[in-house]
Amino acid sequence: MNLPYPHFQVNLKVYPDTWGDHAVAFARMLEQLEAETSARFVLTPQLPDLRLIAAETDVTVTAPFMHATEPGRGMGKILPETLADAGADGVVINHAENRDTLTDLVWKIERCRDLGMDSIVCVDSIEMGRAVAEFDPDSVIYEMPGDISSDRAITQTHPDRVRAFLAMIDEENPRTRVLVGGGISTAEDVRLAFEQGADATGAASAVSLATDPEGLLREIAAAFP
Amino acid sequence: MNLPYPHFQVNLKVYPDTWGDHAVAFARMLEQLEAETSARFVLTPQLPDLRLIAAETDVTVTAPFMHATEPGRGMGKILPETLADAGADGVVINHAENRDTLTDLVWKIERCRDLGMDSIVCVDSIEMGRAVAEFDPDSVIYEMPGDISSDRAITQTHPDRVRAFLAMIDEENPRTRVLVGGGISTAEDVRLAFEQGADATGAASAVSLATDPEGLLREIAAAFP
Amino acid sequence: MNLPYPHFQVNLKVYPDTWGDHAVAFARMLEQLEAETSARFVLTPQLPDLRLIAAETDVTVTAPFMHATEPGRGMGKILPETLADAGADGVVINHAENRDTLTDLVWKIERCRDLGMDSIVCVDSIEMGRAVAEFDPDSVIYEMPGDISSDRAITQTHPDRVRAFLAMIDEENPRTRVLVGGGISTAEDVRLAFEQGADATGAASAVSLATDPEGLLREIAAAFP
Amino acid sequence: MNLPYPHFQVNLKVYPDTWGDHAVAFARMLEQLEAETSARFVLTPQLPDLRLIAAETDVTVTAPFMHATEPGRGMGKILPETLADAGADGVVINHAENRDTLTDLVWKIERCRDLGMDSIVCVDSIEMGRAVAEFDPDSVIYEMPGDISSDRAITQTHPDRVRAFLAMIDEENPRTRVLVGGGISTAEDVRLAFEQGADATGAASAVSLATDPEGLLREIAAAFP
Repeated sequence: MNLPYPHFQVNLKVYPDTWGDHAVAFARMLEQLEAETSARFVLTPQLPDLRLIAAETDVTVTAPFMHATEPGRGMGKILPETLADAGADGVVINHAENRDTLTDLVWKIERCRDLGMDSIVCVDSIEMGRAVAEFDPDSVIYEMPGDISSDRAITQTHPDRVRAFLAMIDEENPRTRVLVGGGISTAEDVRLAFEQGADATGAASAVSLATDPEGLLREIAAAFP
Repeated sequence: MNLPYPHFQVNLKVYPDTWGDHAVAFARMLEQLEAETSARFVLTPQLPDLRLIAAETDVTVTAPFMHATEPGRGMGKILPETLADAGADGVVINHAENRDTLTDLVWKIERCRDLGMDSIVCVDSIEMGRAVAEFDPDSVIYEMPGDISSDRAITQTHPDRVRAFLAMIDEENPRTRVLVGGGISTAEDVRLAFEQGADATGAASAVSLATDPEGLLREIAAAFP
Repeated sequence: MNLPYPHFQVNLKVYPDTWGDHAVAFARMLEQLEAETSARFVLTPQLPDLRLIAAETDVTVTAPFMHATEPGRGMGKILPETLADAGADGVVINHAENRDTLTDLVWKIERCRDLGMDSIVCVDSIEMGRAVAEFDPDSVIYEMPGDISSDRAITQTHPDRVRAFLAMIDEENPRTRVLVGGGISTAEDVRLAFEQGADATGAASAVSLATDPEGLLREIAAAFP
Repeated sequence: MNLPYPHFQVNLKVYPDTWGDHAVAFARMLEQLEAETSARFVLTPQLPDLRLIAAETDVTVTAPFMHATEPGRGMGKILPETLADAGADGVVINHAENRDTLTDLVWKIERCRDLGMDSIVCVDSIEMGRAVAEFDPDSVIYEMPGDISSDRAITQTHPDRVRAFLAMIDEENPRTRVLVGGGISTAEDVRLAFEQGADATGAASAVSLATDPEGLLREIAAAFP
């Protein structure tokens, strides 16, 4: 397990002005927040930026995607071995914008284990979470697709579902950590997620498109348990 | 036009031991060959290695793939803007292992132009080359899928097709450069490609899996016109 | 060339209540309109309905999709030979909701030719139309993706583009027929399309979701030249 | 539950000469075998042939594929509602040649339930079978991808895995039936599958490419318990 808990994950996706020097500056800001507070962060940069951020900063970094592929032919493929070499602490699997087949999902969890990277599998229902728990991932992200990029956090709209999901994982596979996400936009959403028992939470658009990301993240840091 | 001509392109794909430090060492070897000979090289590394190689070496680098996507949402997408920022001199489009829709192919040529990267479009027939020439790419790679990873170079088996392809491009769009590839494995294949009029040629497996890549590339350098 | 010209194509897609008996009843209504007027129709039903409609009615039918695949393995694939056997008069290629790679697009045009089905290739710009004309399809559908399912017909908003497209095809490959589509909703749109020189036009949602499809199609029949 | 048990499933895929009249003749031969013996068959024809076979014969038919899509836009999509209307008794989900995302897999099982079709989900390991059993499919096909189209039946090479798989399903979800497949080529393979406890077994290439399919199926019918 490479990822620190509890943590707040920031997913830059391909939002404007979040790559290259911007990404490094962003990572340095997270380092600074970690130095000043007890909050811990995980950053998911773009694939061509991952190695740079891992080399230049101490922030925990996860890859937004990888292919289920072995070394060999495969033009343009994102090879698991290369991500591990580049410094990825974990890999996001089955994201709502990049769904995996069940076969690839299983393969990727195993390959992460072999290469020393955390497997982080997105699911969007309790049933899907229970099925994925069979494969013993390091963590799951419980996120309803309809909540992504919205301002309706599941922690506010469906606290019962969050609690039921956490109880299910606790019963099925207590080793697996749970990040609750989708529409998390404010420090209050973060406080609620931790209060409801989440091991982690995170955001993409709410932080990447914020007018004052540092201000928002300072508030979020203060909401850590 | 960023790419030097004539050149020999080396495509590392995801072959074993070609990423990270290996990729940098490989790029340095190409730099050395360029310093010692008049040969020019273009290196296509893995996407997570591209920025590193562009930063640490002077080798011309091209990206093996990009998505037809704009900044915004898009988990794990390879954003054109990020490749340009990372130092890509060009982008390979429509590779046989990663075919593009016609719509995306056109979009990518235009986006490369906007971002100052060379567009390098793979085609596998004279007819397809003529159609693609309409969109004014910087270069096309003429490569028969059956020849890839084989030891049958089209320059040996079908010199007539190579000549017909070059004549067609010359007539349709003289600005577009032609790389002849597929099964290129030896210095003799390279000599023939240039003799037949190709602007460039290249290889993937023949170099990436060679027992002595430097030795092979020195022979290839000596085959430059 | 199997398709009659001029014609109006109705594409049922997977709109509610357009399959099975509904599809047969719809085809019979088109037959009736053809018997009563000089208008000619082409119907694009769902793939599992195509054989039924071809067997039970005399309407010209086209398939909405096929795979670029040969007989053999391929679970669930839509085989060109099976469509020809089922009575398809043509096949729509590269539709905006189902884009083809350039390689598959070329393969499909050739396979249609071999099997006696019309190739009908969707393009969304003059440049793309010019490129596709190289492969000598029986017809092209010129349709801007943004117009699909809208009520803005290109014939109303950009008659200049329609004329330029038709002039280009006329110059490049006079054998290829042109269907102008996208947002065609009214008899007036149809009248304009034919007036501007289109060989055919058509609609999907405007007819499939109409409260009175027969009434609308009677008006359209009256707009034929 | 529409499918009879025990049964032998024949999957025609897109093998040569298995569509149209050939498919109907094949289905009639299965009807005849069912009339003469106690064996029961399930036929998986090509999608454009499904409605024809369901209309003309009494054979149980399953669809080789469907899209996870709702009525509406969706050119060329295979709509669940249309398959149900066409007479499909079940739908094969997540076949090795057509893998589903976990999200689609779950959606398809539910949609089959709503529409009265059996859900038949392919899995290739005990772990994957256990995960899928959470979603309560009507049946699962346990088939190792490497065995497909080979002459190595899992019932011969790994009887222990077959027994372990059956025991797992029995424990997790006794309602779910198990078809053991992959490389099943002979009556002896079939006899073994039933002896090992399988509810069903089946073949694609072994029957579709047989010189005497009827003779082979008569032998298989005689191997029923």
